[in-house]
Amino acid sequence: MDEVIKNESITKQSEDFAQWYTDVCKKAELMDYAPVKGFIIYRPYGYAIWENIKEYLDKRFKETGHSNVYMPLVIPESLFNKEKEHVEGFAPETLVATTGGNNKIDDPLIIRPTSEVLFSEHYSRIISSYRDLPKLYNQWCSVVRWEKTTRPFLRGSEFLWQEGHTVHETEIEARNEALSILDIYDQLGKDLLAIPFVKGIKSDKEKFAGALETYSIESLNPDGKALQCGTSHYFGTGFSEAFNISYQGRDGKLYHPYQTSWGTSTRLLGAVIMMHGDDNGLVLPPYLAPIQVIIIPIAQQKEGVLNEAKKVYQELKEAGLKVELDDSDKTAGWKFSEYEMKGVPIRLEIGPRDIEKGNVTLVKRNDGTKISASRSGLVDTINTTLKQIHEEMYNKALKYVNDHTTTIQTYEQLKEAINANSGYVKCMWCGDQACEDKIKEETSATIRCLPFNQIKVGDKCACCGKSATKVVLVAKAY
Amino acid sequence: MDEVIKNESITKQSEDFAQWYTDVCKKAELMDYAPVKGFIIYRPYGYAIWENIKEYLDKRFKETGHSNVYMPLVIPESLFNKEKEHVEGFAPETLVATTGGNNKIDDPLIIRPTSEVLFSEHYSRIISSYRDLPKLYNQWCSVVRWEKTTRPFLRGSEFLWQEGHTVHETEIEARNEALSILDIYDQLGKDLLAIPFVKGIKSDKEKFAGALETYSIESLNPDGKALQCGTSHYFGTGFSEAFNISYQGRDGKLYHPYQTSWGTSTRLLGAVIMMHGDDNGLVLPPYLAPIQVIIIPIAQQKEGVLNEAKKVYQELKEAGLKVELDDSDKTAGWKFSEYEMKGVPIRLEIGPRDIEKGNVTLVKRNDGTKISASRSGLVDTINTTLKQIHEEMYNKALKYVNDHTTTIQTYEQLKEAINANSGYVKCMWCGDQACEDKIKEETSATIRCLPFNQIKVGDKCACCGKSATKVVLVAKAY
Repeated sequence: MDEVIKNESITKQSEDFAQWYTDVCKKAELMDYAPVKGFIIYRPYGYAIWENIKEYLDKRFKETGHSNVYMPLVIPESLFNKEKEHVEGFAPETLVATTGGNNKIDDPLIIRPTSEVLFSEHYSRIISSYRDLPKLYNQWCSVVRWEKTTRPFLRGSEFLWQEGHTVHETEIEARNEALSILDIYDQLGKDLLAIPFVKGIKSDKEKFAGALETYSIESLNPDGKALQCGTSHYFGTGFSEAFNISYQGRDGKLYHPYQTSWGTSTRLLGAVIMMHGDDNGLVLPPYLAPIQVIIIPIAQQKEGVLNEAKKVYQELKEAGLKVELDDSDKTAGWKFSEYEMKGVPIRLEIGPRDIEKGNVTLVKRNDGTKISASRSGLVDTINTTLKQIHEEMYNKALKYVNDHTTTIQTYEQLKEAINANSGYVKCMWCGDQACEDKIKEETSATIRCLPFNQIKVGDKCACCGKSATKVVLVAKAY
Repeated sequence: MDEVIKNESITKQSEDFAQWYTDVCKKAELMDYAPVKGFIIYRPYGYAIWENIKEYLDKRFKETGHSNVYMPLVIPESLFNKEKEHVEGFAPETLVATTGGNNKIDDPLIIRPTSEVLFSEHYSRIISSYRDLPKLYNQWCSVVRWEKTTRPFLRGSEFLWQEGHTVHETEIEARNEALSILDIYDQLGKDLLAIPFVKGIKSDKEKFAGALETYSIESLNPDGKALQCGTSHYFGTGFSEAFNISYQGRDGKLYHPYQTSWGTSTRLLGAVIMMHGDDNGLVLPPYLAPIQVIIIPIAQQKEGVLNEAKKVYQELKEAGLKVELDDSDKTAGWKFSEYEMKGVPIRLEIGPRDIEKGNVTLVKRNDGTKISASRSGLVDTINTTLKQIHEEMYNKALKYVNDHTTTIQTYEQLKEAINANSGYVKCMWCGDQACEDKIKEETSATIRCLPFNQIKVGDKCACCGKSATKVVLVAKAY
């Protein structure tokens, strides 16, 4: 009963992109729904992708002097209420525990939606001198935000993430921290996810509750919608004042230090699925993939085939490649579909004819190209091909973003482009929130960010026509 | 104001072991108390130790075919109630969320105290054939158990752990899984923690809620109390029946599969602190320590000293050692105390006289021995010394356990030994729970386990005097 061509039942992207997405999440066995609405189970294949992201980021964080810590899961309501803007931003979506060991809890416990207040409270107790700074902490955990509409990886009532929280002596140091973390996130896209992120700063309306500035990386999906993939916040002294964190400076006087926080989450899996996937399922970039090469023996009952396949497996394994061999009794056709659905970058076929010629056949998942490769020097060929696949995927994604960024001048053009779901609309903005509100109300699109290093594309606000100096990217978003 | 000899304020073990323990947890900066009673903050140094345990176990789990997954944080009360013994065991200590996004939740959500029911519910949906077995899953997460009396790492309302959950076609396979995981835990003690665990099986009274059999590893602390450091459970088909997990067997008929679960937690940090620590603070075994070698320059203002210290640092770093250099302007005396408190296995002193002679001075944290070591071949000397320290610590702990295991025959001897807090009491037991209850009631000690591979130490129950075939270890416990 396993002998079903699994991908027969997957919806086509062109028919229903949202349904295609859900199909891939389920059929590639990335996740399953949990017994509570909005919560999901991260299955082994999905979790392995997250582990690869985690490993990359954790290494970069540690190289740049950050330490991991673990803060409690719960925040007393009274503590949560200390920073006004912060609590207003999060209170409507909190999960609250009120009973512990069959007794009512007097100060109800909020299941952490984010941990600024816990870090700040701790910092207030361990920081007293400039010698104690900077503090560069990060934690890997799950957070809960009670969401009405949820979608696997993109928006969930619980998700996995990392949250960095740092404290600095000077404003400039804190601002640099927030920006240099954004660079690490951006580099993750370039090195691992094959996603060209746009880096920028959020408008005041869209920034994090309690932040003075929020920087973000944004990706653009094939349905024309943008996805915020990571944020980095500069807090100034807002939290350090609210939580009474102070240090004795080099001059002996007391000061409030400057803080940042920053995070990326399992939402990145959603970005990868949407950016690269196709009608046959997932397409994983090679340095993110839990399996880089799947070996499928052809006519494996014939003498010598399985033996040779195992030799190749051993050779690639020893070279450090993430390789698997499927020698189950399923048909080759079933296996092809299965690993296409799972997005494995290279399929390696080996059959009697290949063996005779001293060859193997490589099939690239990203474009279906077949390569006949010599058995000698196979590891090099595969490493080169993986690199090539990564570059092709990155460049294709970059081209997509460029092709789907429409520069406009007038409000009519803006509405037209947004209604066409054609991706980013690039235009000038006066900086007035009234214009931002109007765009959102009338088109449901938002200012995704004020991208860094932009050349002006006009001098009038696309909304109100007044003088404008800010370049913005507008799009519908998840 | 930093120039305080920190360890002056630590309580002596002989004065008050419990207070000494708490002092070390705080002063070695392993943890801090959180704003909610029973919850703690894992500070960078404490968390780094946990990360080393995690890395070791994760590698072993993966080598033996296990995959990581992530299950939701919450369990609906209705689902939790499905396995009767399980819910009775855990219900009294659950934290329950009743409000989400300002609305009452109809089916209240239990913050997971353990995840058997979530795994079982998922397994019921993904297992249908013998081809789907075994399932070998593990997850790293935190769990919440609402405890009245809490102590850092030893018993907390929230703790970090891993929980493995596996499903098997046959009983023998499941039993082997439970036992082979126990071996991995035991090996962790030998390789990393320098703790000789006792492996054994729990009495029916002490086993996990819902398990047919519970195996455990136990350590013995210098205060004579035992500590359960990890458990592995064989469930039979209890959960698979309650959650309706079934598979079509090789003969085409439907069967319920056999399950196990197993876990170790941050309690292991508590075991390490207590087993090895002394009146100067923490003593960390070398392969667990986040810092293996701390370099302290002597008279660092003198020309050439700091330069040479940096060279040594670079050399050790490149050899893969976990090394740090403290070139801060604190006094050497302050630094000595600080890194003793933190239990760093080797202190490396380098001063003008050492440089002149082409030497460095090594000081072993575990016994204070000073070694004058030649600069040439230093990496080898340090590696050998680390290995030696590990062995010395393990052997000392082993000797302690052996010296504090008293074999007794009569109930009077049992009470006497327990009251003397002299460690394990080894004796015969008839297997009757009445005897077990009596021992607990009258001495507050419990049967820690029926240790594996024991030679009988008599033939009568130490409690009731009736015929007995079971060898047990009895002790007070945390």
